[in-house]
Amino acid sequence: MEIDAVYEAGTLYLDERDELLILDQTLLPGERRYIPVKTAQEVWQAIYQLKVRGAPAIGVAAAYGLYVASKNIEENDAGKFCDKVREMSAYLAGARPTAVNLTWALERMEGALNLARAAGVPPQALRQALKEEALAIHREDRQVCFSIAQNGLTLLKKGMGLLTHCNAGALATTGCGTALAPIYLGQARGYGFRVFADETRPLLQGARLTAYELADAGVDVTVICDNMAASVMAQGRIDAVLVGCDRVAANGDAANKIGTLSVALAAKHYGIPFYVCAPTSTLDPACPDGAQIPIEQRDGAEIAQMWYRAPMVAEGAKTYNPAFDVTGHELITALITEKGVLYPPFDRAIAAVLRP
Amino acid sequence: MEIDAVYEAGTLYLDERDELLILDQTLLPGERRYIPVKTAQEVWQAIYQLKVRGAPAIGVAAAYGLYVASKNIEENDAGKFCDKVREMSAYLAGARPTAVNLTWALERMEGALNLARAAGVPPQALRQALKEEALAIHREDRQVCFSIAQNGLTLLKKGMGLLTHCNAGALATTGCGTALAPIYLGQARGYGFRVFADETRPLLQGARLTAYELADAGVDVTVICDNMAASVMAQGRIDAVLVGCDRVAANGDAANKIGTLSVALAAKHYGIPFYVCAPTSTLDPACPDGAQIPIEQRDGAEIAQMWYRAPMVAEGAKTYNPAFDVTGHELITALITEKGVLYPPFDRAIAAVLRP
Repeated sequence: MEIDAVYEAGTLYLDERDELLILDQTLLPGERRYIPVKTAQEVWQAIYQLKVRGAPAIGVAAAYGLYVASKNIEENDAGKFCDKVREMSAYLAGARPTAVNLTWALERMEGALNLARAAGVPPQALRQALKEEALAIHREDRQVCFSIAQNGLTLLKKGMGLLTHCNAGALATTGCGTALAPIYLGQARGYGFRVFADETRPLLQGARLTAYELADAGVDVTVICDNMAASVMAQGRIDAVLVGCDRVAANGDAANKIGTLSVALAAKHYGIPFYVCAPTSTLDPACPDGAQIPIEQRDGAEIAQMWYRAPMVAEGAKTYNPAFDVTGHELITALITEKGVLYPPFDRAIAAVLRP
Repeated sequence: MEIDAVYEAGTLYLDERDELLILDQTLLPGERRYIPVKTAQEVWQAIYQLKVRGAPAIGVAAAYGLYVASKNIEENDAGKFCDKVREMSAYLAGARPTAVNLTWALERMEGALNLARAAGVPPQALRQALKEEALAIHREDRQVCFSIAQNGLTLLKKGMGLLTHCNAGALATTGCGTALAPIYLGQARGYGFRVFADETRPLLQGARLTAYELADAGVDVTVICDNMAASVMAQGRIDAVLVGCDRVAANGDAANKIGTLSVALAAKHYGIPFYVCAPTSTLDPACPDGAQIPIEQRDGAEIAQMWYRAPMVAEGAKTYNPAFDVTGHELITALITEKGVLYPPFDRAIAAVLRP
């Protein structure tokens, strides 16, 4: 089966006028609108405000973003041009701290810039080098998703009940997703999965985005509140859990959307396989374990009022809003990467798959 | 310390005109409004629509409700009057299936009616017997809450971090609550607890009600999304979990608000005591285990759109909305009742505490 036969969501693209267009995911599922992104600040905002989200998609957005923003640099001196690009890159890297793909993509962009700079080309050609690298990152992301689909599907059987948390789907990538990738490939092959999607508070990526894209692709999908996952598992309706991740430490501890830990604990209790779908770009060998992964803290208004008609947290109460949690490697059955399925002990498996 | 020194919320009361007034909890935290309730249908609606909720409060509301509704029965024949009261009682019992207190309170009311009927009194005196039984149920509920506060506080230490799910507070009772009762008594005694309240999707009883009443009482309270509980536990910030319950089976399995099971699984994993606060009226010796407890299924619109400015679940996706789940007795550290703290094996402890 070809890569083009599998569902994609049109998360972002460079259009024929060389302009970066990003699908504003904060408007989904109600409205499907693309926003043009031209400056480094606009890219930063789009990432910070989660108009584009999902570790792989953030990487591609930052790569294209650095390229389009570099067109605003009016410098004839190649060295000064490179300095300004590096400044922009450092700025963009600060938009969200947890996902390693953001820095990974920006480092690749800087690497491509340095290579071109070493060849002594003028700013215009440096810009072209940035564009080519961004296009390559985009192309590779699609291919990585498809490989994860193929590798993940080997672990699943027809008619299975699957649970997923947050959105690690087509919308989180520029391909067919990570955690949802095997589901789309299975759908194309008539597997007839029944998918339960955690709504994923506070930002409702499950209810808004995962439900949107699965329904769009014709997959049987049922949205539940996050706190219902254990109950659905207890009823025997879940055969496997598939989630994405934002960063995997060298020992296999995986940071993913807040609530993933809770799902993993329940899956462990009920003996349900818990699979983390991870492009190798999310593996961070420099990070020894989950305790070292920085956890982004977000505005409590996301919990108390963001989507609501009226404030929903009583006055005088505080809120606490971590965007991610860390699932210990001992709770993970396997890591599904584009280079194969990794099993414990993860430290060795991760080191091996990253060996050049 | 006296019962009156501990926080109460004014959940419902019979006013000086003998009218039943219920605090409409669906409007909290934004607005504090009492609604008059006069007919059996209005009582049913108030319970079904969760204007009054929480197993003990539902019991008291149904008792008063049966009394005030009985005032609408125009019958001079005592036998026919009793038949109509029993009809109303059966109707009210159907408002919500899971909480056993509802039937428990209505059965007490019918018992009082039968006793008065046997004494051969006219309808007006039968009405008076209903009123007295409702007042007794109310009085006892307050006392039960206070006893749970005292028994529960023996298990807690100053400065502890406590987690609760849903609202088993003053608003769920006509006294100082069940799960929150020990917190209020501790607060009055300067224990300085730090409380984390799960927001409790889909109806947000934690964010709206628990946060409201704890903040109102000056307790340090932080609202988190349900999916953050495991993460907060993993950080070592929780020393004990306190929850209420809607029905406890003979073997100790406890039905409570959906999501309780998930909290219990995480507490077990992190070795955190998990306490279920249960008036003995919630113990159901006729129900052998949790599998026999009927679980109320509610409208998916509660998940998809109820509180929102726009529908938040993508079109084409289904929803699944069970109101409760069952926490297996093996996950429960102790049951805190008004008659003492019960430890495993729960089957024997429950049988013993219910022995007349």
